[in-house]
Amino acid sequence: MTSDLQKRDLKHVWHPCSQMKDYEEFPPIVIKSGKGIYLYDENGKEYIDAVSSWWVNLFGHANERISAALAEQAGRLEHVIFANFTHEPAVLLAEKLVEFTPEGLSKAFFADNGSSAVEIALKMSFQYHKQKNKPNKTRFLALNNAYHGETLGALSVGGVGLYNEVFQPLLLNTIRAEGPDCFRCPFQEEPGSCDTPCISFIEEKLTDHHEELAAVIIEPLIQAAAGMKMYPPGYLKKLRQLCSRYDVHLIADEVAVGFGRTGTMFACEQAGISPDFMCLSKGLTGGYLPLSVVMTTDEVYDAFYDDYQTMKAFLHSHSYTGNPLACSVALEVLRIFEDERYIGQIQEKAAYMRKRATELFVHQSHVGEYRQTGMVGAIELVMEKATNKPIPAEKRAGYQIYRIALEKGLLLRPLGNVLYFMPPYVISEREIDRMLKIANEAMQVYFDKSPDNVGVVEA
Amino acid sequence: MTSDLQKRDLKHVWHPCSQMKDYEEFPPIVIKSGKGIYLYDENGKEYIDAVSSWWVNLFGHANERISAALAEQAGRLEHVIFANFTHEPAVLLAEKLVEFTPEGLSKAFFADNGSSAVEIALKMSFQYHKQKNKPNKTRFLALNNAYHGETLGALSVGGVGLYNEVFQPLLLNTIRAEGPDCFRCPFQEEPGSCDTPCISFIEEKLTDHHEELAAVIIEPLIQAAAGMKMYPPGYLKKLRQLCSRYDVHLIADEVAVGFGRTGTMFACEQAGISPDFMCLSKGLTGGYLPLSVVMTTDEVYDAFYDDYQTMKAFLHSHSYTGNPLACSVALEVLRIFEDERYIGQIQEKAAYMRKRATELFVHQSHVGEYRQTGMVGAIELVMEKATNKPIPAEKRAGYQIYRIALEKGLLLRPLGNVLYFMPPYVISEREIDRMLKIANEAMQVYFDKSPDNVGVVEA
Repeated sequence: MTSDLQKRDLKHVWHPCSQMKDYEEFPPIVIKSGKGIYLYDENGKEYIDAVSSWWVNLFGHANERISAALAEQAGRLEHVIFANFTHEPAVLLAEKLVEFTPEGLSKAFFADNGSSAVEIALKMSFQYHKQKNKPNKTRFLALNNAYHGETLGALSVGGVGLYNEVFQPLLLNTIRAEGPDCFRCPFQEEPGSCDTPCISFIEEKLTDHHEELAAVIIEPLIQAAAGMKMYPPGYLKKLRQLCSRYDVHLIADEVAVGFGRTGTMFACEQAGISPDFMCLSKGLTGGYLPLSVVMTTDEVYDAFYDDYQTMKAFLHSHSYTGNPLACSVALEVLRIFEDERYIGQIQEKAAYMRKRATELFVHQSHVGEYRQTGMVGAIELVMEKATNKPIPAEKRAGYQIYRIALEKGLLLRPLGNVLYFMPPYVISEREIDRMLKIANEAMQVYFDKSPDNVGVVEA
Repeated sequence: MTSDLQKRDLKHVWHPCSQMKDYEEFPPIVIKSGKGIYLYDENGKEYIDAVSSWWVNLFGHANERISAALAEQAGRLEHVIFANFTHEPAVLLAEKLVEFTPEGLSKAFFADNGSSAVEIALKMSFQYHKQKNKPNKTRFLALNNAYHGETLGALSVGGVGLYNEVFQPLLLNTIRAEGPDCFRCPFQEEPGSCDTPCISFIEEKLTDHHEELAAVIIEPLIQAAAGMKMYPPGYLKKLRQLCSRYDVHLIADEVAVGFGRTGTMFACEQAGISPDFMCLSKGLTGGYLPLSVVMTTDEVYDAFYDDYQTMKAFLHSHSYTGNPLACSVALEVLRIFEDERYIGQIQEKAAYMRKRATELFVHQSHVGEYRQTGMVGAIELVMEKATNKPIPAEKRAGYQIYRIALEKGLLLRPLGNVLYFMPPYVISEREIDRMLKIANEAMQVYFDKSPDNVGVVEA
């Protein structure tokens, strides 16, 4: 039964990341309200939001503290142009971001979404080198399987074919390097003891191309859209050294992993490194509003600081840059981190999730691996454990399990054959149990009905 | 005297569209609150926001009706993933947008800012042609002096050197055409009677390049960032015909001019045309929050609608796509348009502004022209009226007048030597008088102190 609102949605709304024809037999679920880790649809059905609504929510839906900060700001000042003007929420937010991010990141440049933040970092890096008399540094280096957003500049440094293949004629000629692949490690290393020999792939590219390279861009610790591919901090440490040696900027895209997601405030902390640029968004507003920021160094800032007539200024504006509503919300999010000592809570909850998920999943024949970094857990589904042979993409195993899980009240939204758990930090141990249990049930239903892993289940 | 917050801002905040060194002697003004057309700084000083905070505000700062809608939505559902999920505010907003925009625009694809909307339109147009077996249509045509945003794709179709010159090695190879230049018309036409012979420039490019062209992108009626360059609707009518003849999409970038700004709900209405894509943002949320939308046709939508395995889906996502808070605010904005019959009010106020500004400015020796379209009025400053010789850019005449006007309580922010008025629609006739009067005084101070038009005034 398709509801009135579903029909009206399908008439006029074109949804992101969707083949709209899929919606014919699986119309969009109309969400009416949210609270904590739960979403409620128009029929009152409850869903655990195990993906934090595309990795943005931190402290639960309709969080009272954040909503109060938002309403208070709206009553005072909803927005003001951010060129030659400023406001207290932006200043306090910038201060806290400088305090929380790795040493050396002393300047905050605001924008609206993660893609725009990535574009800003790319443009700043390019212009920096130009103004430092290195105009040949016009290219970027990124990892295969990287995801950095979908505006054309950001898409150019992405490596997931699903998103950028069709647009190749519109994209920059990015230099690509094989990244870490810990699940199918070509060096047969174990993550715990690994000395990251796979750094050699990117090292080779840096050696060959550094004179034309402005920056390397990377997702620290987790290549998220690629299927929650995780790798050890040692890789980042070596990469930081290589970038410094070759005078190439390091852009850390922490849009998905920042704000506690990996168990530390920022993923770079675990490697003890400071990038030249750090892109932040998503969790920055606790899942409330689009806002992003590029953190960078005094050294970068100083290369643009000169008399007006030199035309060295960095020009990149969005109308809502520094939006007071979004800044107030982000400020409240950072205050919650401080007031409730959330990093410790995340680490405890992550340890619990790891223990329970390991018990539940690792022995299963279709589970190639259960991996986890902080509050991101991922199940790599395979044809059979012995060979780790992948399930063919056209079977859409993840998609089928997603639909079964939704029926059971769990929003999973896998990436291909990777099921992952990235819940809001407010999740309780009991709720972690329930989330994992439903995911497990959905997997069982799928594999039981499709003993060869490849059948299509009617949800 | 630099205040504590100003010092703290300068330590950590990198502002958009600014040479930060300018802030040494002119630190950012700290805005504490807003109401109606006014902004109030930390010392209680009042400023008329004559630029609607970068052309976004429609119904005044801290508008009670909009703030109430925002708070109400925040208490219910702040956000939900928009792939396979939906919510009432997005559906109702899409319906109203379809109703308000020109005929044929039946589908709404959401994003966060104007640049992203432009990128979506470019990507959709390119992929559409590819899926219609015209893979050679990989390029775009745009006007000299165009501005469409600053992410690399959007910047590629822009033509204002200030924003894109330094980034040339990173940009797409866009085809450019001379656009209308009514102030210095090469055909000596008058706007009122003009038959737009200047369409020949773009027609020539279309004739030569249509086989490789996916789309033409244009700012309807006003090339805003270029200096509020205005041109008659007849140009758009002819351009629509040319695009249809050559199977090239027409992208109308109404980010700056949409939502009543030109005196009709959308600028395209005045030409009686429907584009293939319409990009909307800025006023969409009445100046509250970043939100954008690309409106397009069933024909475009259908070219992407197929079985999943054909991989024809349009993939472009931002985390906050379809954000319920922003959608609720936008919905309330459209309701205010309806409930208070705002288009009629805008036309009356625009007529008043035109009359008063004409009286005040047109006779002045440094005013080359006063032009107006709807609620956008612009003064073109020149060395002397007789020759319309421009004031050299390095003199920063506009910037000096901006600073003098700020001292007098008016936020003008000129574009080069063009002073413009783009106030919130809630402005009263008395307030229009005051806005114009202060602008006039600021001009007099500048030109009196600098009789050769070129001196630098200490503000």
